[in-house]
Amino acid sequence: MSHYIGLDLGGTNVKCGVVDADRRVRSHLSIPTDASKGPGAVVEAMAQAALDVAKKAGIPIEKVDGIGIGAPGPLDMKRGILRAAPNLPGWKDVPIRDRITQITGRPAVLENDANAAAFGEFWAGAGKRDGVRDMIMLTLGTGVGSGLIVDGMLIHGAYDLGAEAGHMIVVPNGRACGCGQAGCLESYASATATVKRVIELLRGGEPSSLLDLFDPWEEKIEAEELRASKIIGAGKRGMKRPGLDKITAKDVFDAAKAGDALALRVVDEVATYLGIACVSLCRLFDPQMIVFAGGMILAGDFLFDRVREAFRKQTWKVVESKVEIVQAVLGNDAGFIGAAAVAWNAARTGALKG
Amino acid sequence: MSHYIGLDLGGTNVKCGVVDADRRVRSHLSIPTDASKGPGAVVEAMAQAALDVAKKAGIPIEKVDGIGIGAPGPLDMKRGILRAAPNLPGWKDVPIRDRITQITGRPAVLENDANAAAFGEFWAGAGKRDGVRDMIMLTLGTGVGSGLIVDGMLIHGAYDLGAEAGHMIVVPNGRACGCGQAGCLESYASATATVKRVIELLRGGEPSSLLDLFDPWEEKIEAEELRASKIIGAGKRGMKRPGLDKITAKDVFDAAKAGDALALRVVDEVATYLGIACVSLCRLFDPQMIVFAGGMILAGDFLFDRVREAFRKQTWKVVESKVEIVQAVLGNDAGFIGAAAVAWNAARTGALKG
Repeated sequence: MSHYIGLDLGGTNVKCGVVDADRRVRSHLSIPTDASKGPGAVVEAMAQAALDVAKKAGIPIEKVDGIGIGAPGPLDMKRGILRAAPNLPGWKDVPIRDRITQITGRPAVLENDANAAAFGEFWAGAGKRDGVRDMIMLTLGTGVGSGLIVDGMLIHGAYDLGAEAGHMIVVPNGRACGCGQAGCLESYASATATVKRVIELLRGGEPSSLLDLFDPWEEKIEAEELRASKIIGAGKRGMKRPGLDKITAKDVFDAAKAGDALALRVVDEVATYLGIACVSLCRLFDPQMIVFAGGMILAGDFLFDRVREAFRKQTWKVVESKVEIVQAVLGNDAGFIGAAAVAWNAARTGALKG
Repeated sequence: MSHYIGLDLGGTNVKCGVVDADRRVRSHLSIPTDASKGPGAVVEAMAQAALDVAKKAGIPIEKVDGIGIGAPGPLDMKRGILRAAPNLPGWKDVPIRDRITQITGRPAVLENDANAAAFGEFWAGAGKRDGVRDMIMLTLGTGVGSGLIVDGMLIHGAYDLGAEAGHMIVVPNGRACGCGQAGCLESYASATATVKRVIELLRGGEPSSLLDLFDPWEEKIEAEELRASKIIGAGKRGMKRPGLDKITAKDVFDAAKAGDALALRVVDEVATYLGIACVSLCRLFDPQMIVFAGGMILAGDFLFDRVREAFRKQTWKVVESKVEIVQAVLGNDAGFIGAAAVAWNAARTGALKG
């Protein structure tokens, strides 16, 4: 039986696990990402975690067939270099793959973390079914991440800059996106965008049960203690409430589930844009499955039944029943499982270096 | 030197050619598609054309390494069956690939005609350059067709229904598309859509030099002779003019080039939607080239400079210079050259059957 180690480098933690060729997790562990020590120390800690997790599984490191590393980008995948990382200040052109190989003695492969997570769901999660070869994953969180799997392989693009479905344009000249474009899916369907839209409507004066929980006159709960006595708004419903900036996507979904019209309208908008994006992705990739992941899947079928309905309304009738829209099942483990799966795939296709 | 035959089945003609592994056309010919004789006779005529074109090139048929067949869909590519064809009434589940092999004795492969043309441009046309592995082709004609090439291979999707970039949704709840969806790229950027939009604006009463050439009161030029004396509109500019339904995309581009404000506005709209579609395609596929083909490329850089500008305005600055937006170079030969290229590729990957 072959074994692979997956390493998932995040801004807060490094998750690590041993996964066997039967797609079972044999051991796993998590260590903090101590970014203050600089890239060299973090990469060494990752290599040590790989050695530790192999030991934990009772597998000698030399019996591990390969190590997959999922990391935030931009990356130079062919050379195994992390070029920069928004969550890891000071990381520039870090030869992470070769350093891991140097310390562990095992061949390694570097992959974008969103791609790795998608490949994990494909290989060992929602997509783990006979005959599934084409799958798209959309991760709804602070942004909208994605992974595109075509005939069993991840799409990267010519410059490793593809598979960014969150930055497909869904509205011409639409909302400004953090990426510099206008009208990106991410500006309409991320958790951040959902909350932003609710706040915009509340500020516009629309009534909502959310105003019983959040105070449009209070922007920061930290300041509330100090200012409560002086602010008229804070007292107008007879209780202290955090400001609108404290609203989370969960609050929006909870309010919508309880029947709040404003929240429901925003949830319907989000579902409509996700449905439209699914239609466009189906016309291009014709996948068997579209899998949703990320924090927003906690909203459950309340959200995804609406996404399926929006998709059904918009798409070609002939293929309507051919694509399944489902939620991811691996949660936060998708990253390291997917990184291991990437190593498994690289071994299979002869792309494992080291 | 290996040789491949390409067959391009159209509603009017079958184009056919011998192409060598150095991507040179060695011979070619065209025969009418006599659809009235039924699929059996047409497929036999295609096989005969393959035999004839080999003879014309002076290459014994048994020295031909494979035959590629480009045909309108839907197809069952794996089984080599043409399931139906809008332009070929009565064609249903025609085992075109195996029949061609039976008559010619050569292995064959069936491919969607739009994909074949894209692969032709990739292999022997605009994309024929060292290092180009990722290319997208958009064909602007009656509709908007497309072919997606990722790492040197065409994308088909799980059910051979992918690579339909003309049916990406570019405007939520937008114009009704012939395909049943709303807001498809095809409804904004095909030759048909361009003309339709101009007519809509002219009917809405907007002034245009096109009204010197076309009469909003005359729908059919055939009827004009009979009705000219009775219709006030037909005489109001002192000359007989065809109806608005006779406007072509060429008329629109000619008027725009001559400075007509209405036509220019429509051309700018078309370019904007094409630019937006290119942005979305880059975020997903990160190609090195986007190649435009079809009748509308006759508009030349007058159109494509605008597309490039719209793209540049919308896309990520970091990759702006990494993708070339260019016009196709093979014209109507792309179909048979591409079909031959598909056979070349199938031979290379072991997918050639027969």
